[in-house]
Amino acid sequence: MPPSISVLVTGSELLDGRANETNSHLIIQALAECGLAVEHVLSCDDQIQNIKSSLDFLRRCSDTVIVSGGLGPTSDDLTREAISEISSKELVLNRACLEHMEAFFMKRRGRAMDPSNQKQALFPAGCRIIPNPAGTAAGFAIEIDAAQRRCLVIALPGVPSELRIMVSESVLPALKQKYQIAESQVYNRRVLRIFSVPESTVGSRLSAIKPPQQVSVSYRAHFPEIQVMLKALPAEYPALELKALSERARQAIGNDHVFSESLELDLCQVLHQIFVEQAITIAIAESCTGGLLGSMLTYQPGSSKYFLGGAITYSNESKVKSLGVTPRALEQHGAVSFEVARQMAQGVRQSLGARLGLSITGVAGPEGGSAEKPVGTFFVGLSDPHQTAAYHCFFNSSRDKVRTFAAWTALDIVRRLSSGLPIPHPSQCRGNS
Amino acid sequence: MPPSISVLVTGSELLDGRANETNSHLIIQALAECGLAVEHVLSCDDQIQNIKSSLDFLRRCSDTVIVSGGLGPTSDDLTREAISEISSKELVLNRACLEHMEAFFMKRRGRAMDPSNQKQALFPAGCRIIPNPAGTAAGFAIEIDAAQRRCLVIALPGVPSELRIMVSESVLPALKQKYQIAESQVYNRRVLRIFSVPESTVGSRLSAIKPPQQVSVSYRAHFPEIQVMLKALPAEYPALELKALSERARQAIGNDHVFSESLELDLCQVLHQIFVEQAITIAIAESCTGGLLGSMLTYQPGSSKYFLGGAITYSNESKVKSLGVTPRALEQHGAVSFEVARQMAQGVRQSLGARLGLSITGVAGPEGGSAEKPVGTFFVGLSDPHQTAAYHCFFNSSRDKVRTFAAWTALDIVRRLSSGLPIPHPSQCRGNS
Repeated sequence: MPPSISVLVTGSELLDGRANETNSHLIIQALAECGLAVEHVLSCDDQIQNIKSSLDFLRRCSDTVIVSGGLGPTSDDLTREAISEISSKELVLNRACLEHMEAFFMKRRGRAMDPSNQKQALFPAGCRIIPNPAGTAAGFAIEIDAAQRRCLVIALPGVPSELRIMVSESVLPALKQKYQIAESQVYNRRVLRIFSVPESTVGSRLSAIKPPQQVSVSYRAHFPEIQVMLKALPAEYPALELKALSERARQAIGNDHVFSESLELDLCQVLHQIFVEQAITIAIAESCTGGLLGSMLTYQPGSSKYFLGGAITYSNESKVKSLGVTPRALEQHGAVSFEVARQMAQGVRQSLGARLGLSITGVAGPEGGSAEKPVGTFFVGLSDPHQTAAYHCFFNSSRDKVRTFAAWTALDIVRRLSSGLPIPHPSQCRGNS
Repeated sequence: MPPSISVLVTGSELLDGRANETNSHLIIQALAECGLAVEHVLSCDDQIQNIKSSLDFLRRCSDTVIVSGGLGPTSDDLTREAISEISSKELVLNRACLEHMEAFFMKRRGRAMDPSNQKQALFPAGCRIIPNPAGTAAGFAIEIDAAQRRCLVIALPGVPSELRIMVSESVLPALKQKYQIAESQVYNRRVLRIFSVPESTVGSRLSAIKPPQQVSVSYRAHFPEIQVMLKALPAEYPALELKALSERARQAIGNDHVFSESLELDLCQVLHQIFVEQAITIAIAESCTGGLLGSMLTYQPGSSKYFLGGAITYSNESKVKSLGVTPRALEQHGAVSFEVARQMAQGVRQSLGARLGLSITGVAGPEGGSAEKPVGTFFVGLSDPHQTAAYHCFFNSSRDKVRTFAAWTALDIVRRLSSGLPIPHPSQCRGNS
């Protein structure tokens, strides 16, 4: 029998429409790394009777329940009380924890602890305390008797940055030991991350290579990229064969469309590597993306090595003043055109003395489209000391998605050219909406 | 008995760590609008036996189950098959749907439909088809016999933009009718959206006004803002009293810290209103935020009315070239300083001819900090034709959070000054990490 691990996430904000529940994802992701799958993910609100009934349901079908949320200082944080009642263990003040919290406040926040935080030092008697290196709320683990067996209940805070570190530093090592995780039980995985091909095309190209039954193939449309995951147990399908299959899949999908084979390496990080390795400096000029391209390029620590700066030229006037775009080009071709994209890229490259100039000008919508240049039309300009080119793209979607897609397209064009790969024809620049 | 509605979200990517599950949130949010609460949210992977067992569990405890996902064209899309088996209704091709899909591909994607999409026109016999105005996969609704009662199963696609429109246009009207939703069953809600005060402070200030028992108070830390929701049934606590309570809460927290009282009105939209109403134009100069401030200011359609453009000046050289920052100021005070923030704001305002110039310069980290200016130090500059000021802020967190917090702080300073509100002292500029 595989271990049965469930996740309970508490918080009224999760069921009344205010919050996206993302903590179960974080736990699932961490467990997946050592081959542990989650069986049930359940969400419930902050009422103590609902936390108790959810816990009661899960402890009957799971041998480990990981609870996230409800360890905070406010009146609706009731996880410790619920676990105390369901395990019949009273809450006891932990002095060491209290002192740690008081010190944390002075050091990290520069102020004394609010008295409301004191309840975060209460724990069910007999539990094991799980330290929180990133915040005030420590977690705890306690065994509870269920109908047929004992169930390990692990309570963790709901703040994602705290949850993440506590799962990796305390929970995972404990679960690996509890379930005696052997290498043979850990799935091998291969990931292909794809941009500029629609999901249905990826699906049919991949079906054509007929992956064997032992390999699980799954797709994820994570706008604007598509992720394919191939997964197999080493005993059923050796790692080397999985690698070869992944390579066949990559060729079938189109080698140039796959920008990464790692969940840890996103498009910005791929660009980061290219810029650092090839000692390229870059300057950018953005219109419809309004800063999005720059914020992607500077997301990575160390981006100051290659990113010199840029201009956000929303108005025509600013295109002329900041980038030297000619009024004639704006008049003859319009702001959204090959010519203006070229002049923007060249202008920003020259004015900041960068090796590459990259520009985007387009119609993000919802207004501003025309028959000739409908909403979703954009041009990417790329200039280096030898030449300046522009690419015409079109992506019919909402304002937000057009902007994201345009910024990705610009980065992808740089990736392709820096790696000697072809640029897709504009009719293929549609991707998935 | 309140209606019992559950949500099932399918997708291996949700349990193997690749995807955040956000669709249940979207459904919950829509249902909350008409006072319907969700009882269970369950996630399961793409295996048909797991979809079937999850459906079987939920149909026994719910009278409506909303399923999202698994209606796509790929081999792991098996929701229609699972529902067909569990309801003992075979899958039948719907010609009208097929034709609609073929037309959709030509019109929206500019290419013929991939044959793999054909299975999206198969539906369990006797179901009601739910049109999809935004994509290819239509949904469907079918009644299934459960142990004691009949359960309505509603299958919808997993693509969020499609799910959203189908829930609001088809599912909600049907559920309102089914459950005869009366006004008295619909909760009144008041929301306070807060920036620049930590959650624990908000919590203790709010506890101090002792909200009555009939009002549910919940908190959500949605970085970098804090949301407080007050909720009550009209029969138990009248809407006008709830409004008055919310006003008292606002004063207790600090009137100036509350930037919005609506989930539909975020900080960018508040700024949008201010700029449009006061006919203000703005230009920006960003260093450590690298474009994030610009992308926030241009997120809203119609931002070209007030946003003229900006400069992303990552290097010292670009600060001098693009903004006229003096080499002397850089040398004497460093790039992260009051003086450089002031010069950046003034420089960009003058060069683009805007009413306001707004700048950010800081140390986002993880490298680049010093004893005097540790990681998390940033300065916001604000210039208008009469004066130029700069504000010193500090937020000790990760690179990503420092950047987000800095962009929010800059926008919040503009909001405060445009509304005659005080600027918090730098020691309060810490917020919640």
